[in-house]
Amino acid sequence: MINYNDVAGQNVRRIEALSDGVFAIALTLLVLEIKVPEVHVSSEKELFNSIAALSPKFLSYFLSFMTMGIFWTGQSLQLSYMENYNRDLSWNSLFFLLLISLLPFTTAFLGEYIEFKLAIGIYWLKNLLFGVMIYAHWHYAYKKNFIALKGKELEAIDKAIRKRVIVAQSLYLFGALLCFINSYLSIGFIILVQLNYALAIFSSRLRKRNKQEAA
Amino acid sequence: MINYNDVAGQNVRRIEALSDGVFAIALTLLVLEIKVPEVHVSSEKELFNSIAALSPKFLSYFLSFMTMGIFWTGQSLQLSYMENYNRDLSWNSLFFLLLISLLPFTTAFLGEYIEFKLAIGIYWLKNLLFGVMIYAHWHYAYKKNFIALKGKELEAIDKAIRKRVIVAQSLYLFGALLCFINSYLSIGFIILVQLNYALAIFSSRLRKRNKQEAA
Amino acid sequence: MINYNDVAGQNVRRIEALSDGVFAIALTLLVLEIKVPEVHVSSEKELFNSIAALSPKFLSYFLSFMTMGIFWTGQSLQLSYMENYNRDLSWNSLFFLLLISLLPFTTAFLGEYIEFKLAIGIYWLKNLLFGVMIYAHWHYAYKKNFIALKGKELEAIDKAIRKRVIVAQSLYLFGALLCFINSYLSIGFIILVQLNYALAIFSSRLRKRNKQEAA
Amino acid sequence: MINYNDVAGQNVRRIEALSDGVFAIALTLLVLEIKVPEVHVSSEKELFNSIAALSPKFLSYFLSFMTMGIFWTGQSLQLSYMENYNRDLSWNSLFFLLLISLLPFTTAFLGEYIEFKLAIGIYWLKNLLFGVMIYAHWHYAYKKNFIALKGKELEAIDKAIRKRVIVAQSLYLFGALLCFINSYLSIGFIILVQLNYALAIFSSRLRKRNKQEAA
Repeated sequence: MINYNDVAGQNVRRIEALSDGVFAIALTLLVLEIKVPEVHVSSEKELFNSIAALSPKFLSYFLSFMTMGIFWTGQSLQLSYMENYNRDLSWNSLFFLLLISLLPFTTAFLGEYIEFKLAIGIYWLKNLLFGVMIYAHWHYAYKKNFIALKGKELEAIDKAIRKRVIVAQSLYLFGALLCFINSYLSIGFIILVQLNYALAIFSSRLRKRNKQEAA
Repeated sequence: MINYNDVAGQNVRRIEALSDGVFAIALTLLVLEIKVPEVHVSSEKELFNSIAALSPKFLSYFLSFMTMGIFWTGQSLQLSYMENYNRDLSWNSLFFLLLISLLPFTTAFLGEYIEFKLAIGIYWLKNLLFGVMIYAHWHYAYKKNFIALKGKELEAIDKAIRKRVIVAQSLYLFGALLCFINSYLSIGFIILVQLNYALAIFSSRLRKRNKQEAA
Repeated sequence: MINYNDVAGQNVRRIEALSDGVFAIALTLLVLEIKVPEVHVSSEKELFNSIAALSPKFLSYFLSFMTMGIFWTGQSLQLSYMENYNRDLSWNSLFFLLLISLLPFTTAFLGEYIEFKLAIGIYWLKNLLFGVMIYAHWHYAYKKNFIALKGKELEAIDKAIRKRVIVAQSLYLFGALLCFINSYLSIGFIILVQLNYALAIFSSRLRKRNKQEAA
Repeated sequence: MINYNDVAGQNVRRIEALSDGVFAIALTLLVLEIKVPEVHVSSEKELFNSIAALSPKFLSYFLSFMTMGIFWTGQSLQLSYMENYNRDLSWNSLFFLLLISLLPFTTAFLGEYIEFKLAIGIYWLKNLLFGVMIYAHWHYAYKKNFIALKGKELEAIDKAIRKRVIVAQSLYLFGALLCFINSYLSIGFIILVQLNYALAIFSSRLRKRNKQEAA
C-alpha cells in the first residue's frame, strides 16, 4: 500500500518556482508603502526636502531587500544540491516562505519602533527562525542522503553551509544582545553583518589576503 | 480537420508555472492586511499589547497559508504524474486557481463572523469545492489514461490519492456539522484536521507504530 | 556585424514565464477589490444579505477570470508551437501582457457603467485588441517559418488557430453592435460567447453529434 | 576547504525565474493606481470626459511598461548567453531587480512633478543606474569567461551589447541635459528614445536602407 504522505512533495522544481514567486512578490511589496509625496512644492529645494523625508522608508526597503537576497541565495544553493525531496522538506520550505512573506512586516515594525527592545527582539527572532529552518532543511536532507554530492565534496559543502548558518546566527545574537547597551548600536551591528553577507566585502578581502599569504 | 479545442491546453508545465504564480500571490496577499500598528506607545508592555492585538490576524494568516500549502502539495503531486494533459484539465486547473485566489477572502470572512453558521458554511463549502475539483482532476486523467504510471503502481497511487480526498472531505463535513452544537468547536475541529494534514503528526505516529508492530 | 535587435528576444521560455507571472497577478488582482463587509449583523439572514450584496463584484471577478483563462490558453497554445522567436514577437507578447494587466480595469469599468455604450465599446475594443495581437503573433511566426510543424499538420493547426480568432471576433463584434438595441442584451451575448469558449459546452456537443453522425 | 561564497548564486535559471516574477509584478503594479472613476455621469460625453481625465495615468503606465520591456529584453538576452554564473553576478541581478521594483515610483514621481529639474534628474539617474548595472553584468561575465560563445561570434555579440548600452546612455544623458532648456523637451526626447528602442522603428528603417544600398 502506498501512503499519500510518502509520495507527496517530491518535486524540487515546483518548490523553486513557488519560492521565486513568493520572493518576487515580497521583494516588490514594500515599495507599495512608498508613496509619491502629493504636496504643493514651489521650488527644487522644497521638492528635494519632500523626497529626503522618504529616506527612512527607502532605507527600510533596502534593508528588507538585502535580507531577502541573502536568504534567497542561501535557499537557492541548498535546493540546487537536492536530488531527492519529500513532503517534510516541502513543508519546511513552505514555512520558510511564510517567514519570507512576513519579512516586510517585521522590517516595517522595526522602522516604526526602533527604540524599543521588543522591536529588536522580534527582528532578531525572525532572523533566528530563518536560521533554524534553513539549517533543519539541510540537516534533514543530509541525513536522508538526498544531496547530489559524494565523498569529500559532500563533506566540504556540508561544512561550508553549516558553518555559514552558525556564524551568521552567532553574529545576529551578539547584535541583538547589544540592545541592552543601545538600540541603534544593536540594529546597526545587525545591518552591518547583513550588508557584509550581501556585498561579501569582508570575506572577499580575507580571501585575497589568504591567497597573497599562500603565494 | 483539427479542432482548436482538441489541441489547446496540453501544456502541464505552463499550468504548473501559472499555479505557482497564483499560489505565491495568494500566500502573500493576506499579509497586506496586517498593518504595523501606528499608535503612540511609551513602554515595552504597551508595544507588546499592541502587537498581541494583531494575533487574530496572524492566526487567520497562518490558517490560510496552511490550507494553501495542503492544496498546493495535492495539486503538485497530481500534476507530477500527468504525461498528457488537455483543455478540460486546463480549465479544471484554472477553476481550482480561482478558488485559491478567493481563499484569503473566505478566511477573512470566517475571522470576522466566526459565530455565524453561514461563515462556517462558506468556509466548509470552499473546502468541499477544492475536494470536488481535485478529485475530478484525478478521476478524469485516470479515465483518459493520462497518468505516467502502470499496473500495480498506478493502482496504489490511484487508491492513495482518492482515499486522501474522501477521508479529508468526510472529516471537513463532520467538522462543519459540529456548528449545530457550537461554532468554535466546529471551526476548531476543521483547523485541527488541516494542521494534521500540514504537519502529518498523527499519520507519521501511526506509521511508526505500524512499523514497530511489523518489526 | 551583429545588430542588437537581431539577437534580442529569442527566448520563448522567458516569455512564457513572464506571461505566467503577469496572468497569475492579474487573476488575483480583482479579488483585492472584494472586501469582507465590516458591518454589524445580528442574524444569519442579515449576514446573508451583506454577502449577497457583493454578488456583482464576484460576477465581475468571475467574468475577468474566464476572459483571462481564454486568452492564456490561446497564447499558451501558440507559444507551445514556436521553435524560433525574435524581438518583434517578444514585443508583441509584451503588449499582449499590457492588455492583460489592464483587464481588471476594463471589467470593473464595465461593471460600474454597464448602461453606457462607451463602457461596452471599451470592453469590446479590449477584446478586439486581444484578437489583433494574438492573430498578428501567429501570422508573423507563420510567415517567418518559426513554427515547429510541417506539411499537412502545420496547415491544419494554422487553419484552426486563425478560424478560432476570426469566429470569436465576429461574435464579439455582433455582440457589441447589439448595444444599439439594449446594453444588457449586448453584454449578455458577449458573456455567453466567452462562457462557451471557457466551458466548450456548445463545441463539445457539436463534436459529439458529428461523431454520432459519422458513426 | 570550500567557501560558501564560492558556491552560492550559480543558478542562472533561478535568477531568470526570480526576474520574471519581479518584472511581472512591477508591470502590473502601476495599474493598481488607475482607479475606475466613481462619479455620477448622466451622458456618454460626461463618461468620456471622466475617462479622458485618466489619460496621464495611462500614459505614465505605458511609459513604465515600455521601459521595463526594454530592460527585460536586455537582461533576458545577457542571461541567455551565460553558461556560468556566480554570487557576484547574482547580487548584481538582485540590485538590478531592486531598481525594477522602484520603477513604478520613479515614473509616478516624474508624472507628479514633471516641471521640476529634480524629477527629471531622478528619472535619468534611474536610467543611468540601469545602464551601469547591466553593463557591469556583461563586462564581469565577459572577463570571467562565463559566456557560452567563442571567437568571432563572442566578439560580435560583445560589441553589439556594449554599443547598445553606451549609445542608449549617451542619448539619455543628452535628453536629461535638455531640461536646462525646457522640462517637456527633455522628457519628450527621453520618451522618444525609449519608444524607438521598444518599437525599433528607426533601427529597422536603417537596416532596410542599408540592405537596399548593399543590394
